[in-house]
Amino acid sequence: MAKETVTSTAVAKRAGVSQSAVSRVFTPGASVSKKTAEKVRKAAAELGYRPNRLARSLIKGQSRIIGLVVAYLENQFYPTVLEKLSQSLQKRGYHVLIFVTNIVQDDFDKILEEIMDYQIDGLIAASLPVSADVVQRYKVEGVPVVMFFNRFEADDTLCGVTADNFKGGRKVANFLAAGGHQRIAYLAGHEAAATQIDREAGFLAGLAEHQLTLYSRGVGGFDFQKAQEATRHMFDVETPPDALFAANDHMAFAAMDTIRFELGLRIPEDVSVVGYDDVPVASWPSYDLTTIHQPMEHIVDLTVEVLLGIIEDQKEPAGHISLDGPLVVRRSARIPDAFASSQDS
Amino acid sequence: MAKETVTSTAVAKRAGVSQSAVSRVFTPGASVSKKTAEKVRKAAAELGYRPNRLARSLIKGQSRIIGLVVAYLENQFYPTVLEKLSQSLQKRGYHVLIFVTNIVQDDFDKILEEIMDYQIDGLIAASLPVSADVVQRYKVEGVPVVMFFNRFEADDTLCGVTADNFKGGRKVANFLAAGGHQRIAYLAGHEAAATQIDREAGFLAGLAEHQLTLYSRGVGGFDFQKAQEATRHMFDVETPPDALFAANDHMAFAAMDTIRFELGLRIPEDVSVVGYDDVPVASWPSYDLTTIHQPMEHIVDLTVEVLLGIIEDQKEPAGHISLDGPLVVRRSARIPDAFASSQDS
Repeated sequence: MAKETVTSTAVAKRAGVSQSAVSRVFTPGASVSKKTAEKVRKAAAELGYRPNRLARSLIKGQSRIIGLVVAYLENQFYPTVLEKLSQSLQKRGYHVLIFVTNIVQDDFDKILEEIMDYQIDGLIAASLPVSADVVQRYKVEGVPVVMFFNRFEADDTLCGVTADNFKGGRKVANFLAAGGHQRIAYLAGHEAAATQIDREAGFLAGLAEHQLTLYSRGVGGFDFQKAQEATRHMFDVETPPDALFAANDHMAFAAMDTIRFELGLRIPEDVSVVGYDDVPVASWPSYDLTTIHQPMEHIVDLTVEVLLGIIEDQKEPAGHISLDGPLVVRRSARIPDAFASSQDS
Repeated sequence: MAKETVTSTAVAKRAGVSQSAVSRVFTPGASVSKKTAEKVRKAAAELGYRPNRLARSLIKGQSRIIGLVVAYLENQFYPTVLEKLSQSLQKRGYHVLIFVTNIVQDDFDKILEEIMDYQIDGLIAASLPVSADVVQRYKVEGVPVVMFFNRFEADDTLCGVTADNFKGGRKVANFLAAGGHQRIAYLAGHEAAATQIDREAGFLAGLAEHQLTLYSRGVGGFDFQKAQEATRHMFDVETPPDALFAANDHMAFAAMDTIRFELGLRIPEDVSVVGYDDVPVASWPSYDLTTIHQPMEHIVDLTVEVLLGIIEDQKEPAGHISLDGPLVVRRSARIPDAFASSQDS
């Protein structure tokens, strides 16, 4: 594994350019003519020169690596997010170093300590309970932390971009109330998850505004099988619910399959089902799910902008940015007249 | 962004342990008692000590970072793979640095050159056409490359773990032939993809063994909408196919939705549909898709084993490992008697 050292001076000499030109060629975003770049890349390839990003990171304090810590990727929503985030950062000359954690089993603080051992330029924490304490420790180390799809406490030292899950939950309540539903059930996600807590709070607030209360509540934990079991349980009563709001699309699909294929009820004639996220499968004809659209690309773009603003331009952290997503009306739920021509509440 | 330097000696002194104990605590996989680890972590936190993995990587030639270059993540199959791979490497003290590339638009060789600028310990290339040339260049740099879900040319300098897509395609042909189908159609993926090429070759070879030829062929490019269009086109004839093999599950779902909801045909009474991959959605009641299971976890484990064997134990690259996946019989296709009690061909 011994690595011979070829210096940038040797490359510059062979390419017939200055050493700073060689350096610029290997610095993402630096200005250099196409012709010079070609000459340098060719000379570098011939000599086996490799600019040492890590050595450079020790000198400049930049590794151009962004840490991403995610709770789990199984939810169909995250893969797309990860791809967009990787691409967006890559365009700006950064790459993503992934840390997968299990919020239920792992010692999350310990993982964040370990991540610090890597010389990352910044950290993005997705859907994880990051404390102000930890953010402060990272700040001391010069590593900005931006939350992503996270819930925020009212703490100005935290900075992040998220979807407004409370508002989304309330929109669903308005929609189901307008549809004249009387027995409205809720299928909860993992009880500790911020998305679950905020969506339910908004939903209940919305129902209350229409003098409605929850008819029944099950817990699916964002898991397909658990969501099916919870649905069976909620519908195994003399008068089953006439509407079900699932805290994410993944559980809505599970509920729909159980309602149609096991319980023999029709959707939306007997039961309206509404989800949350608007994952690609939601638009597939088998489900055609009415759901709240997450403005995912917008959230990704803003997260990258905020984080790189702090890293590159020493901007002040932007605080909390909360983005609203529209209700996408499809055919899994009864459509009230007021919504027939609209896609938003 | 200034970072104060706290040395491991200072941490050792405060914790009342040796400097080598401090070093072991921050070396993944190194042996250290829980009590010592706690004392060291506490002292390190109090002093704000952070072991510099990157500085260490320059000395030891190890960053404990594995590069992963993937073509695209939108296929529902990859997210799960990525999660398992991250977790498996994380257990061994490594983390994944992601490079997303678009095989159609990007200059793939250039991306591989750029990846070399990072001091990665190894590279995993997923479903990408990596040339022996590039692998050789990485070898010179001391960076082993392992392919993952890739197609191999007969070149012993390449090393990797893959699923046997040819065998899988042939299994589907055997299954459909045993079911007595006479008009068998094929829905192709992206024509340049190795998975597409090998699955189709195996499928055609299998049909030929039963004196069958393809009734019709459409191209869905692994895309939902394109798969729907191709299905419409193939079925818009006087005598439509009585069986369809889609090159992956994602396209099989699209085809099923089109066949049932647009064309009004029954599955499997009028048309049998078979997919490939066995993604989670395949087992959902709405699809209940017969498909070839990818031995994904096994492939991930072997890939990690092969790569870390080269990195940590200087093992010789293991060549090509090809894993076979079983046919999972569900209800989207007519079940021949011979398969009624079996899950494999």
